[in-house]
Amino acid sequence: MRKYLKRILLPIIVLLYGLALPAFAADPLPSWNDTASKKAIVSFVKQVTTKSSPGFVPVDERIATFDNDGTLWAEQPMYFQMFFALDRVKALAPQHPEWKDKEPFASLLKGDVKSALAGGEPAIAQIIMATHAGMTTAEFEQIVKDWIATAKHPMTRRPYTEMVYKPMLELLAYLRLNGFKTFIVSGGGIEFMRPWTEKVYGIPPEQVVGSSVKTKFEMRDGKPVLERLPEVNFIDDGAGKPVGINEHIGRRPIAAFGNSDGDLQMLQWTAAGQGARFCLFVHHTDAEREWAYDRQSHIGRLDKGLDEAKAKGWTVVDMKNDWKRIYAFEKR
Amino acid sequence: MRKYLKRILLPIIVLLYGLALPAFAADPLPSWNDTASKKAIVSFVKQVTTKSSPGFVPVDERIATFDNDGTLWAEQPMYFQMFFALDRVKALAPQHPEWKDKEPFASLLKGDVKSALAGGEPAIAQIIMATHAGMTTAEFEQIVKDWIATAKHPMTRRPYTEMVYKPMLELLAYLRLNGFKTFIVSGGGIEFMRPWTEKVYGIPPEQVVGSSVKTKFEMRDGKPVLERLPEVNFIDDGAGKPVGINEHIGRRPIAAFGNSDGDLQMLQWTAAGQGARFCLFVHHTDAEREWAYDRQSHIGRLDKGLDEAKAKGWTVVDMKNDWKRIYAFEKR
Repeated sequence: MRKYLKRILLPIIVLLYGLALPAFAADPLPSWNDTASKKAIVSFVKQVTTKSSPGFVPVDERIATFDNDGTLWAEQPMYFQMFFALDRVKALAPQHPEWKDKEPFASLLKGDVKSALAGGEPAIAQIIMATHAGMTTAEFEQIVKDWIATAKHPMTRRPYTEMVYKPMLELLAYLRLNGFKTFIVSGGGIEFMRPWTEKVYGIPPEQVVGSSVKTKFEMRDGKPVLERLPEVNFIDDGAGKPVGINEHIGRRPIAAFGNSDGDLQMLQWTAAGQGARFCLFVHHTDAEREWAYDRQSHIGRLDKGLDEAKAKGWTVVDMKNDWKRIYAFEKR
Repeated sequence: MRKYLKRILLPIIVLLYGLALPAFAADPLPSWNDTASKKAIVSFVKQVTTKSSPGFVPVDERIATFDNDGTLWAEQPMYFQMFFALDRVKALAPQHPEWKDKEPFASLLKGDVKSALAGGEPAIAQIIMATHAGMTTAEFEQIVKDWIATAKHPMTRRPYTEMVYKPMLELLAYLRLNGFKTFIVSGGGIEFMRPWTEKVYGIPPEQVVGSSVKTKFEMRDGKPVLERLPEVNFIDDGAGKPVGINEHIGRRPIAAFGNSDGDLQMLQWTAAGQGARFCLFVHHTDAEREWAYDRQSHIGRLDKGLDEAKAKGWTVVDMKNDWKRIYAFEKR
């Protein structure tokens, strides 16, 4: 046994140690400045992964949940899924001659988005249902795949999947390297995200939680399909986020990441668990490289959350000062 | 580099090979007789895991879904969750003096289960809601944990978690060893299963799909809770199973395991995907070691499923002849 140990096991240990060292030596969060936010993240991860630490958390319980819009990718001047819906209205218009005289479609088709959305939530719901239901789940998946591969953001002219925050991609990878299971918990459509989250974020479909329409199983020409119905199934926003987390994950996260008041309950739910917890808001402070908005914004309003973060000592990322780079495509 | 290879890498390769060999040599399914069912399972797994095979499936897509009642654990003379509900009625009776004169509770409390359940589904719904709602998710979890740790089956006098099928535990482990992610997709309560599935089946909470009541997020004395409401959220049975799979997993399984007509749509949904697929029904044929029932049974009826399995060439496990042992506690 002694000989075995020396000849076989020791080289392995040495080798593994050697392989592991560079991983520790290299900065896992190179797009983050060495400010308080980064220090808080690294300190939390050390705490929950160090066996001798009082805050140690077993691997199975290392659940981290991330909002998507405004937390992992941008959300201005309007939610990207809304751009998708508008593009779909245009694509579907030939099949809907009645839309020419029917709001909100009439304004949309004239290119007047503002008037179309002036109808508020009912108008938005009409647009969403007209574009997100009435097909099978397989058909919708293909529509999303085609759109996400070709559509460009109206201001940056970049594909939407390039408008993801590089520091957050590093954070996702860093957490996973440390045994975390990373989930998306977004107000966005679950089936709108799943076709591309694995490739873009490394998050597989079964770790995506989102809003959904009802679906119905039926046989069509002897083949089973799931038809998407124009009926809301679940809204994964605000007080819905802890509900969605409980339903899909069944355990409480130990870390949660958001950027708006719609994420507040997710952070409260996370913070209320026992043991080490980490809550973080991304604060959009960089009008030059991205957008600057918080308490007054219609999209991604961060108001109550900012107050509660201060009161509770949660981490608030100042995008302008905490992030070296925002997008991978930025010139440095 | 040459030296490095010889000194360090070669011993590792040899060692790993040595460690791996016994795993391949030992039978991973020792409780299965060498009949057609076992051969079909092993052949399917070889097919999807062999890179050069036309049926090869990448690890990410190796999703296997299992029904619970009658597939992973027994379900006679009535669903085990129903025993839980009845025990809860007794425990809660002191707080509900009105139950003495109110069906189905009155009969139940007199020990007359048959009369109580004579009211059919509405009676069962009343019992479920009275015992599964009106508390927080954390409270319900504790109630389930306490019950599952102490309750005994009325006929075997064994804890319910010992009435799991050993061949199926081996199958779960065998699939996971081969890169599969194993999920439960059950008509049973999602929150009734999650407190013990990880320990008993090795299936973590986030891989359990089941029926559920609605929950509501609220602040109680400054602490967030999820209250369980007496309202059905989702019934994960029959045509609901593909819906639940799509919602929770977001990809189509390549293998599905059930035992009743309530699993038929899950198997149809699985079989309709492209590439190698595996569908299996557990057929309860052993009246001596377990129970024998199929087309006429009120619990776990297998009628249409049996016909479709035959027509489609799905695997049907004959418990009596295919399984050497059913329970781990059986004397051999």
